[in-house]
Order: sequence, then C-alpha cells, then structure tokens
Amino acid sequence: MSPKITTELLKQLRQVMKSPKYVQEPVQAYIVPSGDAHQSEYIAPCDCRRAFISGFDGSAGTAIVTEQHAAMWTDGRYFLQAAHQMDNNWTLMKMGLKDTPTQEDWLVSVLPEGSKVGVDPFIIPADQWKRMSKALRSAGHDLVPVKENLIDTIWTDCPQRPCKPLITLDLSYTGVSWRDKIVALRSKMAERKVLWFVVTALDEVAWLFNLRGSDVEYNPVFFAYAVIGMNTIRLFIDGDRMMDPAVREHLQLDSTLEPEFKIQVMPYGSILSELQAVAAGLSSKEKVWLSDKASYALTEAIPKAYRYLTPYTPICIAKAVKNASETEGMRRAHIKDAVALCELFNWLEKEVVPKGTVTEIIAADKAEEFRSQQKDFVELSFATISSTGPNGAIIHYKPVPETNRTLSVNEIYLLDSGAQYKDGTTDVTRTMHFGTPSAYEKECFTYVLKGHIAVSAAIFPNGTKGHLLDSFARSALWDCGLDYLHGTGHGVGSFLNVHEGPCGISYKTFADEPLEAGMIVSDEPGYYEDGSFGIRIENVVLVIPTETKYNFKNRGSLTFEPLTLVPIQTKMIDVNLLTQKECNWVNDYHQKCREVIGAELERQGRHEALRWLIRETEPLIRVQ
Amino acid sequence: MSPKITTELLKQLRQVMKSPKYVQEPVQAYIVPSGDAHQSEYIAPCDCRRAFISGFDGSAGTAIVTEQHAAMWTDGRYFLQAAHQMDNNWTLMKMGLKDTPTQEDWLVSVLPEGSKVGVDPFIIPADQWKRMSKALRSAGHDLVPVKENLIDTIWTDCPQRPCKPLITLDLSYTGVSWRDKIVALRSKMAERKVLWFVVTALDEVAWLFNLRGSDVEYNPVFFAYAVIGMNTIRLFIDGDRMMDPAVREHLQLDSTLEPEFKIQVMPYGSILSELQAVAAGLSSKEKVWLSDKASYALTEAIPKAYRYLTPYTPICIAKAVKNASETEGMRRAHIKDAVALCELFNWLEKEVVPKGTVTEIIAADKAEEFRSQQKDFVELSFATISSTGPNGAIIHYKPVPETNRTLSVNEIYLLDSGAQYKDGTTDVTRTMHFGTPSAYEKECFTYVLKGHIAVSAAIFPNGTKGHLLDSFARSALWDCGLDYLHGTGHGVGSFLNVHEGPCGISYKTFADEPLEAGMIVSDEPGYYEDGSFGIRIENVVLVIPTETKYNFKNRGSLTFEPLTLVPIQTKMIDVNLLTQKECNWVNDYHQKCREVIGAELERQGRHEALRWLIRETEPLIRVQ
Repeated sequence: MSPKITTELLKQLRQVMKSPKYVQEPVQAYIVPSGDAHQSEYIAPCDCRRAFISGFDGSAGTAIVTEQHAAMWTDGRYFLQAAHQMDNNWTLMKMGLKDTPTQEDWLVSVLPEGSKVGVDPFIIPADQWKRMSKALRSAGHDLVPVKENLIDTIWTDCPQRPCKPLITLDLSYTGVSWRDKIVALRSKMAERKVLWFVVTALDEVAWLFNLRGSDVEYNPVFFAYAVIGMNTIRLFIDGDRMMDPAVREHLQLDSTLEPEFKIQVMPYGSILSELQAVAAGLSSKEKVWLSDKASYALTEAIPKAYRYLTPYTPICIAKAVKNASETEGMRRAHIKDAVALCELFNWLEKEVVPKGTVTEIIAADKAEEFRSQQKDFVELSFATISSTGPNGAIIHYKPVPETNRTLSVNEIYLLDSGAQYKDGTTDVTRTMHFGTPSAYEKECFTYVLKGHIAVSAAIFPNGTKGHLLDSFARSALWDCGLDYLHGTGHGVGSFLNVHEGPCGISYKTFADEPLEAGMIVSDEPGYYEDGSFGIRIENVVLVIPTETKYNFKNRGSLTFEPLTLVPIQTKMIDVNLLTQKECNWVNDYHQKCREVIGAELERQGRHEALRWLIRETEPLIRVQ
Repeated sequence: MSPKITTELLKQLRQVMKSPKYVQEPVQAYIVPSGDAHQSEYIAPCDCRRAFISGFDGSAGTAIVTEQHAAMWTDGRYFLQAAHQMDNNWTLMKMGLKDTPTQEDWLVSVLPEGSKVGVDPFIIPADQWKRMSKALRSAGHDLVPVKENLIDTIWTDCPQRPCKPLITLDLSYTGVSWRDKIVALRSKMAERKVLWFVVTALDEVAWLFNLRGSDVEYNPVFFAYAVIGMNTIRLFIDGDRMMDPAVREHLQLDSTLEPEFKIQVMPYGSILSELQAVAAGLSSKEKVWLSDKASYALTEAIPKAYRYLTPYTPICIAKAVKNASETEGMRRAHIKDAVALCELFNWLEKEVVPKGTVTEIIAADKAEEFRSQQKDFVELSFATISSTGPNGAIIHYKPVPETNRTLSVNEIYLLDSGAQYKDGTTDVTRTMHFGTPSAYEKECFTYVLKGHIAVSAAIFPNGTKGHLLDSFARSALWDCGLDYLHGTGHGVGSFLNVHEGPCGISYKTFADEPLEAGMIVSDEPGYYEDGSFGIRIENVVLVIPTETKYNFKNRGSLTFEPLTLVPIQTKMIDVNLLTQKECNWVNDYHQKCREVIGAELERQGRHEALRWLIRETEPLIRVQ
C-alpha cells in the first residue's frame, strides 16, 4: 500500500485556515478528529475527513494541521498501518508510548504565541473540547469553533450523507418495546431530576426505538437524534424513510396515542435550533441530560447551569445489559457464525494446502459468502481482518490489492471477522497454521491462549470493573517478556455496534462501568511480531452469575460463558505449557463446540464441515 | 471499647456554626477532614479534630456535621472500628459500598435550600475543595472557608503543636546531598517553566533537606513548609531547633554559600503571607508549582493564572525511587527487623502455648522491646496491630485495655508492625496459629498466600502501573468467592512515612505513577471474617529489573524482591492447594530468610531465635 500524497491538499487546507470566507480570524492550527457529529467510531464516507486529508483510514486517529506541521495521533493497533498510509508530510504520534506528547502539549510546543486553534464544533465531543480548550488557554492560545467544516470546503468530491431505509425489530428480537424503553428512561430522568434527555449516539437512537438502519457500513444505525421530554418524544431524521408503512406502524405514528408516546418527527438538521428552543424555555432547576461525549455544538446549546452531563447515558447502560431475548438472539447468531467459519476453515484446508491459490482477499470474501448463507444475515460487523504472515502484525489490517498475500503452509493466518444478523452481532478471531508451525510460533500462541483462558475462566465478585481483569490476559506473556499493545476486550452490541460501552477489559483505566450479568464483551489477547506474524484468539463472552464455594459479604460472583463456539487450532498449542486446568478448559470448550455447532452443521446438512469440526475438537492430552 | 459520647460536643459545635464570632454567616454544615495543614495521613494530637468530635480515631475518615445529622465517611479498613468508637449521634458511611452516597450527594440530600457548608481552608486539599465546591454550587449551596477552625474553638484542652529537635542525615544514609536535591528540583522546575515550587507535604520537606523530626508519632517529620525559587530557598519552621549546631552545620546556615543555596529560615506561620508576597511579585507567564493536594488556603494564595498544579510533585516522584544508599539502608533495616520478629515469635511460642498469659498489648510491647534492641532504632513506624481471634477482623485494629484479648492456642494471631530505623522503615504482617489451625483457617490462609506470591513473583513490563497487579493478589480468593476490602500495597518511605505515594497496588485506580526499579511497596493481601479471625501476609518488596526469555519492544521487565525476610508460618499452609511453582517460591523465600537472618542472629548471638528460624524455614513438601 502506497501512502496518499497530501502536499496539495495540505496547501489548500492551510489556505482556507486563513480565508475570511470560512474563518472569522485565521486559525494557526486545525484539528480533524476521527468521528462524526455523533462521535461514532465507524463513520459514513462523507464523514471520513481525517482519512481524506491524511490517507490514514484506521478507525481511530486525530489529525492536527498547522502552518508548518501535520501530525496524526493514533494508538498501538494502527502504528504500522498509519506509517504505511501517510506520506512524509505527516508525523506519526504513537499514543501510549512514554515520549509521545499529548495533542495539547504538542500544540503548545509548536504554535506561535496567541494562536487560534480551530475545530468543527459538531465533530469534537464536549469533554475533549473542555480539556483541549483549558490546556490551550493556560498557554495563551484559543480553541475556536469553526462553523463550516474546513475539510468539506476543499473536499470537492465529498459523497452525500446516506439516508437508507429502516428495519423494524419486533419484541421477539428486542425483548422490550420502545414504549417501555421510553418509560424506563423517563424513570431514570425523574431519579436524577432532569426534564430532558438528548440522544446523540446513533446506536442509542436505534436501540431506543427498536429500529435499525444501514447509513454507516458495519453498524446497523441511521443518522438521527432524539430529544425525550417527560411528555414529548422528538425524533430528528431525514428522508422519506418515515413514509415506510412498516416504520409508521412500528412507531405508531398514525395511531391515537397517549400524548406522552406521540413521536414528533423533525428534520435531522433542526436539532440545534430545536435544542436552543428547549433551552430558552427552561426555568431554574430544570436540567437537560447529555452524554459528556456529545458534540460541543449541542452541549453549548444548553446553558451551563441547565446541563446534566454524565460519561455514560442511562440508555448506554441499559443497552449493555442484554435481556433474555437479546441473549438468546446472540447465542443463535454465534451458532450460525460458527457454522460459517467451520465451512470456511474446512474449505481453506482443502484449498491452501494443495493449491496455494487463496489470497487474503479471497479468504475474506469466502468467509462473507459462508456467513451470508445463514438465516437473518444482514452484513459484516466490521471490515474482515484476513492477514497472513507479516500482515498479521498490523493489528487492524484490512487486505487491499497492494498488500494482498497468498495464504501458504509456511505462514500463520489470522482471521478476525464478524457479522450482523438480525438476532445478534458476532466478532471472532482465530489464528491458524496450514502447515507445521515452528516451536516459537506455538510457544507464543500458547501464551496468548493462556491469557484468553485466564480471562474467560476468571471468577470475580459482582461490582468488579472489567479493567481489573486485563492483567490476567497478559500474565503468561509478561512472564516471558512479551505483551500486546491493545486492550483485551470491548463491549459488543446486540445487532448493533460491534464496539460499545460502557464496559470493557483494558489496561487503560477509562471510566468503565462494573461488569454485570447480561453484559457481553470480547476476550481477545494477542501477540504481534512486526514483520513476522500476528496471533490473536478472540471469543465473544457473556457475563453470567456463578456459584462459588463461599460468598463473601453475599456479593455473589460472576464469570464468562463463551458465546463464540469455533475450534481453537490445537496444532498451534504447545500442550506442555498448559496447566491441567487450562487443558481441561480447552477440552471442555471443544466438547461444547462439537455438541452445539455439530448439531447445527448436521441440521444444515453440512457434513464435510462437520467432519472438520470433529477432527479439530479432538481432546488435548497433556503428558505429566 | 465503648463509644465516645458526643451529644454535648455536637451541641457546642452547632452553636459555633451559627456564632457571628466565628462565621460571617451561619453555616448549615461543617466538614471535619482527617488531615492537617499538610494533608498528612498520620497527624499530631493537636490536629486530631475528627477524632475529638466523633471518637473515631482511625487514620482515614471525614466527618460532616449539620444541624440535624452527624455522618462519618471511612473505608473498609475501618468499618468495624468506627462503628465501635462512635455513639449513635453518628451515621457511618461505608465508602466503597454501592449504596453509600458521596459526601456531596449526601449534603445535597439533607441540606435546606441555599445552605453554606463550612470548612477550614488550611485543612482541605485544593482538589477536594474544587470537587466539593462545584457539586454544592450546582445544587444551589456554597462551600465557604471558615478561617478559625471551629473544632479548635470548642476543644478546650487541645494539646500544643509539637516542635521537637531535628535529626540530620548524612550522605551514607541519603545517597544525595540536599544541595544536589535542590539542583535536581530546579532542573525539573526549569523543564516545566515554573519559577517557584511550594513544598507542603511534611515528608517532602524532610526528604529535600535530609532532615528528620518527631513532631508526628510514627512519621519522622517536622512541621515546616519550604518555598524553592530558582535562586532562593525559604524554610518555614518554628522553635529553637534551628539553633542546634548540628542542624546549622548540616544546612550550612553559617557558611558563605552561593546565594542560590542560602537557606532563609522563617516562622512556620508566615507561609501564607510570604506566598501572597511571592504571588504579588509575579508577572505574566511566571508560574508557581504546587501539589493539587496542597491546602485550599495556600493554593488560593496564588492567582489561578499563575498556578501549576500536579497530582504528584517532582519531590514525591524522586523520593519514591530509592537510590543505592537508601536501598542498602532499607535492606539493613529489614534484617534487623526480622531479627526482632524471630525473637518475638520464639518468645511467643514459649509463652503462649504453655502459659496463656500473653495479651495483645503484651505481645505488641514485646515486639517493640525486641526492635528497640536493634541498632539505629528510632521508633515504631505505626501503631502495632496485635490482634487475636475476632479482633484480627478489624483491619486496622489497635489493642486497648477494653479490647485486649489473650493469645491462645485456639485462635489465629495477626501481627502487623514496623519500625523506623535511621537506615530505613519497615512494615510486616505475619499471621500465626500457636495451636492447631482448622482446615478452613488453613484454606483461607493459603489463598491469601497464593495472592501474596502472585504479586511478589509477578513479572511485568517497565511502565506498568501498580494497580494493574492488584487482581493477581485476589484471584485465588475470588475463585472461592472470597475477597478483602483494602488495597494490596502502598509505597514505603526510606526512614520516612510508612505510607507514601506515588505508587501503590490497589483496585482503586487512583492516578498512580508507573512502577520503576528502586521503588518500594508493600504486598499485603488478606482475608477477614467478621467476628472470627483476620489473615494478612505482608512483605515490603523492592522493584527490581529482571531478565526474561524475550524482550518485547526492548521495554525491559520488572519484578519484586522481598526486603522483609520473616518466615511465613508453614503450619498455616495447606500445601495441596499450592502449585509446584508457589511451593518453590515459599521454599526459596525461607531459604533466603535462613541464610540472611540466620547469619545476623548468629552474629548477634541470638541462638534460641536462630533455632526457631531454622525450624520455621523447613522446606514444604508437596505431594503430587
């Protein structure tokens, strides 16, 4: 992959940074964050402004352009990818490394005295604005909102904002009606004594109304905001999709309803003025609840005295704890997903070993083909990471023709993939060798497996935050001086975003909420050797209550149940590095794969894949 | 122990809360924090205001008194103790439990509209003031500084502030002269572009000047502040202790020195006015560096634009990383301390088993007696926790005549004790049984031991923060549904405070600094059963570099070396619950105790204790 040449674009951007047509006063620096107006992780093509200006299209990164410099902050998953995709106009700022300056510190070090730093107020989250603004002000600079997005002014062929049809989800999928979700939300609002709640995250709007969309690739969401009052519901959404009879019926738009459940549909672009109108009508002690990650523009619309900001909204927290219908849906989705992967791996073994004609892209496409044969398949849940050999070390790699390698019997193959089914979202990584792995490759794989098991089998008290489990995943690697530069797990949505808050498993102590029974996270430790190979073993796991011998302070204990049921390649395991307990875990897991997925393969008449599954789930035997 | 009767005191306090003699306007609530003007954990008797008003004398707790209520916030270490010491005028607020309100939330829930909440601005740290003030303001109340401490106005027999002689420490103890420490500090100040540094923590003043005192029991510190400029040094200290020729010589007060090393000695009470004078002389861009835990009074003396606040000062961070002289001193101190404990445990076995005449207080006194026989012994480093049976479950118990139990062959005995030697500070906990422990007691002890070993033997990359190791200490307990309600470890000073920042091992994700080679922390998991027994196994451990098989990204790895070398009672261990690796750890540890402490016992001619040591360090044998 060759880097994007950005010399001309940066020249144009630097011109508009000084142009009175777009800025009241020239800005000496312009920040291009990753997100859209909803602080989404995955964004529509029209919102890929940071990728447009820099060439780096990973899912996380912030660009800052000054008169003299262009710098990109991203995390360990993307160090290699960003270095490959950006030309030498850009400096890569490796977040998480000791000597990497923060954006604020860097700005202060390069800006001339009394500089203005511009940013689109709809794109920057309010909490980031606050931090950045404070740091800049204390160094004599100013963070200023630039109403017109400066990237858009130079992006001549910027695509249109998508506006695709909606899917309605009935109770068998969601377990709770949107009316009951509104009732629960209003009760949380009453508890906190707030009168209004502004829904800004796209997956929160989708979850609240039991609707799904396809405006953003991989995430079944649609562009919308909502403002919920104690007696009113306003949904801000564009296009004729509200004309769809199924949607009108689902939202009861044409029924005679109690007024507090009557949904007023308004144009997407009117959110700011409507919010300003709400704010104008507030009297003292009346509060409006927003996420502290809502955009600066919307947050500023509510005068400070009336704002009630929290890191996680009540919707975010309710959405994370899956109910019985959602959990059952997730189980079904993972069974179908495992069927597709058994088919794929069986097919790969047949193709790779004798023929050597399968490339990363072909393998990824084949995975999608097998998934799409399954019931209620909607789309992939993220871009498939199909990587062999050195490409596996690029943590969030996506094969493109320039980098596309052929799978072989000499290299490790890493496949991180998942799908959206109408009943659930999947995300699974398996690392395979189609020939004979080296002792070193097996050793590293086994450390990663030990970490995976340590998290998956962990028992911990109710109220424990996920970040307290992160080191369990690393301990075996640490013992040998190894590690990986990403978190261990993320929350997973139910036919929603594959990454969701408020829980996770990471060494970064973000303000995660305690793990609760019903939450669903990934467990995905890895090990990556630049230029050689990548290893990752990922299951999606459900938090479940568990019985323990004792029960200190009656707190109760939790553990994880793997929802992902795909064999872990035993060929890659150095059994002698496993304890008996770990060995039993693998055997029990494989037994469950055999039973559950075996039955489904049988039902679907996929006999060859079933034979592959049986072969791959033979018990490990540990020599004492 | 019977609770303190506080009805009359609370009545008096509520009177002065409304008295125009002390407050400009009546305050509806008054906060009595734990600390002194230096935010010390251990405080002088004159500063024990919270204990005076409530009866609860644990090391951590905040009292808030309103017209109607009196409430005490404290953490899990003190739930039982506080409940015992306070009468029913007081409500105990158990911090860390899910349903316990924060102080702010509680105040908002009980105060009448538009209330004033008073606090002594010298006692409340600036960061707490900020948080509390913001929360109260957003609920329509006001936090107000009350200049005269209201507790002092009703505390008729309040003791005098101590002003004891100083000890000077030469290079053989400190490794670095105070002049070189000032040079290093000024270079850190230059890096951050600050002109002044205000030293407010007592241990930081003591460390910086290589002086020690005894104004506060257990902590070898003295009441003082310092203000360091790029060319000036001001030391704020009272009494005639600056007349001591040794001190004058040490600080070179009478030498002709370069002006930038000339120390100006000023009265302790003049810090605020001097700081205000410094602030008045500042021009734009000139900054004053303070800890964000400095008192609100001192922080407010510097206008906001001139303040540079950090959670940890450069002195705090430098002090935490012990140099070779300090590390060697700590080793010597721990050898002497182990000798004293071998003597004690040998004596206890002889006395408890046949005679049954040893009480908790006698045992604590005997421990002090043996320690005081050692060279350079100064004092204890904290109040000895000598507790048997149910008293052991009171995590920070201190035996007093009312609670004093007799050690017996039927109960677990927990001794958490330590001393200040001129060459180092110790802190060690051992849990013993002088008869035959039950299977359940052994089981719990063994889980705690497994946690202790998991931390002590952990290998982790450079740059790892201590809180990432906390779960290792709990994993074996969690597996059986057990846990303990305190952190796993704290930083330990070098002949300084037994608890010091900026590192620690805790599930609470306070902003700890990464562990570095040379840092010293405690490793002290436990298990406590209310009404029955307490178990804790504590070593002080030194962070050291270690070699690993591989070295990811050349980061290097760290582990711990135990400085504490006191046998862990093998009688309490259920060997079958240990892995072979854990068993080897115990045997290696005991081998080292035998070699190092055995040699010292031999040298000191303590033959009976030596025989005890040999007996107690017999290798464990694990039946496969």
